[in-house]
Amino acid sequence: MSQETESTPTVTDGTDGHSTRGAYVTGGAEFTRDTNYIEDRITRNASPGSHGEPGWPVEAGRYRLIAARACPWANRTVIVRRLLGLEEAISLGQPGPTHDARSWTFDLDPGRVDPVLGIGRLQEAFFKRFPGYPRGITVPAIVDVRSGEVVTNNFPQITLDFSTEWVEFHRPGAPELYPKHLRGEIDQVNKRVFTEVNNGVYRCGFAGSQEAYDSAYQRLWTALDWLEERLAGQRYLVGDTITEADVRLFTTLARFDPVYHGHFKCNRQKLSEMPNLWGYARDLFQTPGFGDTIDFVQIKRHYYIVHEDINPTGIVPAGPDLSGWLEDHGRESLGGRPFGEGTPPGPVRPGEEVAPGHGA
Amino acid sequence: MSQETESTPTVTDGTDGHSTRGAYVTGGAEFTRDTNYIEDRITRNASPGSHGEPGWPVEAGRYRLIAARACPWANRTVIVRRLLGLEEAISLGQPGPTHDARSWTFDLDPGRVDPVLGIGRLQEAFFKRFPGYPRGITVPAIVDVRSGEVVTNNFPQITLDFSTEWVEFHRPGAPELYPKHLRGEIDQVNKRVFTEVNNGVYRCGFAGSQEAYDSAYQRLWTALDWLEERLAGQRYLVGDTITEADVRLFTTLARFDPVYHGHFKCNRQKLSEMPNLWGYARDLFQTPGFGDTIDFVQIKRHYYIVHEDINPTGIVPAGPDLSGWLEDHGRESLGGRPFGEGTPPGPVRPGEEVAPGHGA
Repeated sequence: MSQETESTPTVTDGTDGHSTRGAYVTGGAEFTRDTNYIEDRITRNASPGSHGEPGWPVEAGRYRLIAARACPWANRTVIVRRLLGLEEAISLGQPGPTHDARSWTFDLDPGRVDPVLGIGRLQEAFFKRFPGYPRGITVPAIVDVRSGEVVTNNFPQITLDFSTEWVEFHRPGAPELYPKHLRGEIDQVNKRVFTEVNNGVYRCGFAGSQEAYDSAYQRLWTALDWLEERLAGQRYLVGDTITEADVRLFTTLARFDPVYHGHFKCNRQKLSEMPNLWGYARDLFQTPGFGDTIDFVQIKRHYYIVHEDINPTGIVPAGPDLSGWLEDHGRESLGGRPFGEGTPPGPVRPGEEVAPGHGA
Repeated sequence: MSQETESTPTVTDGTDGHSTRGAYVTGGAEFTRDTNYIEDRITRNASPGSHGEPGWPVEAGRYRLIAARACPWANRTVIVRRLLGLEEAISLGQPGPTHDARSWTFDLDPGRVDPVLGIGRLQEAFFKRFPGYPRGITVPAIVDVRSGEVVTNNFPQITLDFSTEWVEFHRPGAPELYPKHLRGEIDQVNKRVFTEVNNGVYRCGFAGSQEAYDSAYQRLWTALDWLEERLAGQRYLVGDTITEADVRLFTTLARFDPVYHGHFKCNRQKLSEMPNLWGYARDLFQTPGFGDTIDFVQIKRHYYIVHEDINPTGIVPAGPDLSGWLEDHGRESLGGRPFGEGTPPGPVRPGEEVAPGHGA
């Protein structure tokens, strides 16, 4: 096991939004996330996972990343893959925004089948590895193309391994998203952002009682107030360049006004009413590798259609107005160098562009 | 029939939010409002209603206005009663914010019974007048205290009659809310505000298909853009003083961010993101007779708990932050005299105050 995994934030709390299950709200109860994942890792020396799972070697062209655009946890992997220039080494399959109770599906692909894996349902890759796999079929997932078996769906580790294990395939100028000297602070920030914000919005939306909701709402806004203050004087969350911590917060912020504010009742304010967080979110959105991965249409369709128990009509709101995402954010005045010694990524790989009219 | 009724806006469109019925959304269909009301009128000369309903004479102490704080249509009558100083002449009974499929109930009163009418359910007053009354039990309703029978629930006429028929009981300094020379313009504005805004938000929220919603959303925002522009250069909707038109728009605006934006998916912007409408709404809110009738807690509880088919969890959002309602609006610079030759109403009648913590 390489050193970096020891400082990987422990998933200490309930986590959803990328899983498929029939009902999200349990009457009377606080939402808790199933945090059991396939913890295999893809590493330089094929070292095993933390619970003895087999190791898999880094190898260009061998793996396929399955990441629905709608899902915030999957969105992280798409951003990091692009920032690091891993598009040639790791191909990308994208399930559509909606899914049934059993699996994400490749319903946007020709013939409703992933062109590389040849499957219609992501569940097939899980079953190929573990027949009758009983847990949620989640994205992101990495599939071994040769065998068609899922390797891992352990989302917090996937992006860290992109940064630290796939180094030989990084593009020239790739940024250091998880630099050694900042890992302690990044891990600390990630942990609070995960439990209080990334997962905190789900805790509000899937609360099974007024009490559970009220308490979730307090926790969420306490954390957002902390972030609003933290970002008043610094351009990025940790250090003066973009890191893994920014990626993890960004994918939640991008979904905040279109989904979490109304659908999950996270409505003390809109993101656009929190000046520092809104400036920060727009700064990242306008940075190559972030906003060009965001498909607002798929995001809204996912949440409002899939969560039948909180939106039984399945009607998807037409708002909010998204034009503000491209407005001047003024965050350059705080200093900072987005890519440190590195450079921004080039254009989006052909075929992976967000559909026209789906962005801001 | 007195002259003023001839210019009363015709209810040409579906209308809800004050009625009790089990389901609000009909699959595939546009929401339509039951517009059949008991059209009796209370008039100076006891003239009959427009379809031959019996007439009832204006008489202090004879009638009781039943108006739930939560309901926007009922809220109009509470505002106008207070602006005109009719509190002594017409008493006020207030059902609680939630109701079952059959009736509004007096569940906030001691013993859960209206202290004057001695009934627990508003339905009883409808049944006393029309045994087995089959339509929605709506507020506002006016009840003849002696007989316990409902006189009228014809909301668009009730406030006009307060202005034009109850004149002898108006307080000194009561404003002219429906002045003769402006009735044509008020009626015109009221008609568009009713079909496109007051009822337009319900058309969004109760849409039974994506197509019905999308079209409702377009209609609503077209009207709000018109109002935003109209209010750029004038302080009030018609003329330079508060009129019936302002009362009718205000009760929808007060509910916009707390309810309609999220619950009814009217989410292109928040009211607070429309500068002129937001300034206008705050100006009215801070005017005696308007904001002091608004109970945000009851308003939110009503919509989020009663509409089980669009919010099955019954969870009531904790947001939005309402502190902005009391901030400076700057609308005085547009001129205008809120009460014309008249004066603002005095303090709220004891016992009718909004509960502490329920206002802005």
